[in-house]
Amino acid sequence: MEHKSEIIDFIKSRTSLEILQKIDEIHPVDFLEALTGSDEDPLTILEKLPDDYIAQLVDHADDDEKYDLLSLFSQNRKQHIIAEMSSDELVDLLGSIGSAEKDAIILSLDQDDANEVNELLAYDPTSAGGIMAKEFIAIHENMTVNATIDFLRDMAPASETPYYVYVLDQFHVLKGVVRLRDIIVSTPETPIKNIMIENIITIPVDMDQEEVALIFEKYGFMAMPVINDLGVMLGIVTVDDVMEVIRDEYTEDMFRLAGLDEEEKISGSISKAIKSRLPWLLVNLLTAILAAATVSLFEATIVKIVALATFMPIVAGMGGNAGTQTLTMIIRGIALGELTFENQKEILKKEVAIGLINGLCLGIVVGFLGYYWVGNVVFGLVIGTAMFLNLVIATISGYFVPVLLKKFKIDPALASAVFVTTVTDVLGFFFFLGLATLTINYLV
Amino acid sequence: MEHKSEIIDFIKSRTSLEILQKIDEIHPVDFLEALTGSDEDPLTILEKLPDDYIAQLVDHADDDEKYDLLSLFSQNRKQHIIAEMSSDELVDLLGSIGSAEKDAIILSLDQDDANEVNELLAYDPTSAGGIMAKEFIAIHENMTVNATIDFLRDMAPASETPYYVYVLDQFHVLKGVVRLRDIIVSTPETPIKNIMIENIITIPVDMDQEEVALIFEKYGFMAMPVINDLGVMLGIVTVDDVMEVIRDEYTEDMFRLAGLDEEEKISGSISKAIKSRLPWLLVNLLTAILAAATVSLFEATIVKIVALATFMPIVAGMGGNAGTQTLTMIIRGIALGELTFENQKEILKKEVAIGLINGLCLGIVVGFLGYYWVGNVVFGLVIGTAMFLNLVIATISGYFVPVLLKKFKIDPALASAVFVTTVTDVLGFFFFLGLATLTINYLV
Repeated sequence: MEHKSEIIDFIKSRTSLEILQKIDEIHPVDFLEALTGSDEDPLTILEKLPDDYIAQLVDHADDDEKYDLLSLFSQNRKQHIIAEMSSDELVDLLGSIGSAEKDAIILSLDQDDANEVNELLAYDPTSAGGIMAKEFIAIHENMTVNATIDFLRDMAPASETPYYVYVLDQFHVLKGVVRLRDIIVSTPETPIKNIMIENIITIPVDMDQEEVALIFEKYGFMAMPVINDLGVMLGIVTVDDVMEVIRDEYTEDMFRLAGLDEEEKISGSISKAIKSRLPWLLVNLLTAILAAATVSLFEATIVKIVALATFMPIVAGMGGNAGTQTLTMIIRGIALGELTFENQKEILKKEVAIGLINGLCLGIVVGFLGYYWVGNVVFGLVIGTAMFLNLVIATISGYFVPVLLKKFKIDPALASAVFVTTVTDVLGFFFFLGLATLTINYLV
Repeated sequence: MEHKSEIIDFIKSRTSLEILQKIDEIHPVDFLEALTGSDEDPLTILEKLPDDYIAQLVDHADDDEKYDLLSLFSQNRKQHIIAEMSSDELVDLLGSIGSAEKDAIILSLDQDDANEVNELLAYDPTSAGGIMAKEFIAIHENMTVNATIDFLRDMAPASETPYYVYVLDQFHVLKGVVRLRDIIVSTPETPIKNIMIENIITIPVDMDQEEVALIFEKYGFMAMPVINDLGVMLGIVTVDDVMEVIRDEYTEDMFRLAGLDEEEKISGSISKAIKSRLPWLLVNLLTAILAAATVSLFEATIVKIVALATFMPIVAGMGGNAGTQTLTMIIRGIALGELTFENQKEILKKEVAIGLINGLCLGIVVGFLGYYWVGNVVFGLVIGTAMFLNLVIATISGYFVPVLLKKFKIDPALASAVFVTTVTDVLGFFFFLGLATLTINYLV
């Protein structure tokens, strides 16, 4: 069932028992969409659903809607729903609400769950610990296949990984992993040790989530175990959590490059959009004023040769574009871990070479353009040389600005564009108008 | 084993049998890195490895290195390695080589494999059919759990999904899916029908890969079945393939916005970088010339009030920035499917409102700035009004340019930035210098 009206009609017309039997066939994401698009009172619809399904709905809801959804229910029902949520889902929910509501929810948990949630809350939310779940299937290394199957039968089906079983020793140190598939095809007496994969790749609990995402992309795993310094297994990260991280990081990079707050939503309110964009425009205004001030130094020259004003947009535009090309390349290289300590000199050299070659090509084209437009060879030489210098500076600043920001632990995507454009605008105008001032006698 | 030197030493010092027993503990990705970083002759190292492991190495290698790796081996060994590759891996390899080599490889396959590969090659490489694999575990709906376990035991371990078993009827129409976990915890006599999930979400074979990625992100699945119009199951797409799609699409969007070819690599050659960037800079030069031509219309005015030249960078800069903000928002909204037919009018209204408000704020700030800088109220009014109009036009063109490109089936990320900047530059200068020309008697 994927169609919105179908879903709502189904819930309205059936008994709770009928719903219970069929609800597994409606994906929570589709249910949420149907509920949002429906005029029905949400509580009337939701009341008929089982607790674990509502817990899934809360998990799949947007962060700012999770608590609203939960708040529809009575205190007692709320507690039952929360009990069905896995630790990382609960932590996501708690991260989206005020501290009073948070404390109330933690107090309502049983001791074990409260301990797990408090442990997860203690990790940096952007680290492996912050995105991992505590629900994984762990068995002891001395078990057999048969004992493992019995154990799986007894377990609640809440585990996040239905495809791997983790093998721990008595101190909870991770020894290996067993695929469900190997359990199925092995004889019952087989010791787990014989079918477990040792030496598996693990994630340290304090690893940054972006790095975690890179590891998932590199190896193509479905889930990975998270361990502490002693090798004790603390939780698992699954690929669906990682996909969220990747999407968020990409959006953040793109938005920051364009001067947008990463929290801004296309369907968000106008006031939030203004708050996201106006401050950035004001920062850019300051840099534009810097460029304007550079131009104003040469007003006396411009009065004499007004064609300089005509060519100003070409100087500024081309420098900005070339700088943005290098900048985007470098930011992407940093994000994907492709710009390393070993290759950084080579990449700088390459960018400078690109600046020299592109600068030469464009310098010649624009030089001829200037010569024909104004009818003066020296004017062509001035604009051509300025274009050449500006393109070289564009690639150099396109390289150094993000690298230096990264060194000072500032996200390169955040402020790089504004710095690079400032450099190319200010120096571009300075070279162009400065050269014109030096050669003014040959221009008029 | 993750360390490069450790891996190479291990291979060099051990017998083929010892290597065979331990090779599963070295991830192919790590092996490839070790091989690239090593001075050893690659063939000496690779010869000792089993065929299926070399097949994995070929699969994990970059597209342009796959065939080189394979070509190290004799014709006979090559054939054995290819036989170990899954259909989608083989199709990736074939997509990276010339048609003569391609035909030779297809001719060397047995009839079944050749049919599968030819089927996959017939699909658009950017569609679900182009990224799916033919290797999935399919059982008949009348089987029991016990029969399924026997079947799994007999199967070659090449399947791409070790976590789902697909249930088909006699016409290969997909009826449902069974989780391995449910197979383990059910009694042997249980009919598969009792534990299978029906009404599952499927992917049509001609769906675009970007849409496939959105569905994976939305639902968080590990693998999804691909079907044709009749419901016949054709293959599966797994989440690791989708992660590649997502990364490539994101890189493409970012690169195209910045005027870079999506194939350009940070560590690629200078000549490739020039080929990627110079054409784009030349396109931008044309639009910069358009802006310059607009300015040249007003040279007579600029000669009289040279402060106009000083304020030109502010007009162009702010319009470009505001346009890029809207543009990025809209491109992201299109990519994530958040800009729909239903909400597009509302979003346009919102963007216009943002343009009006930001334009008003910046118009006032820049207006006062102009007034103080030049010491003329009318100059302040002219630059303030021009700024206001430019910001409104920036948001409107930031909305319409990507939406129209999308309508004409051109990737909005590809050309939007250049169009939007052209509009804001040309109209920005036109309003600013035009207003100044109209009010020239009050300005001097």
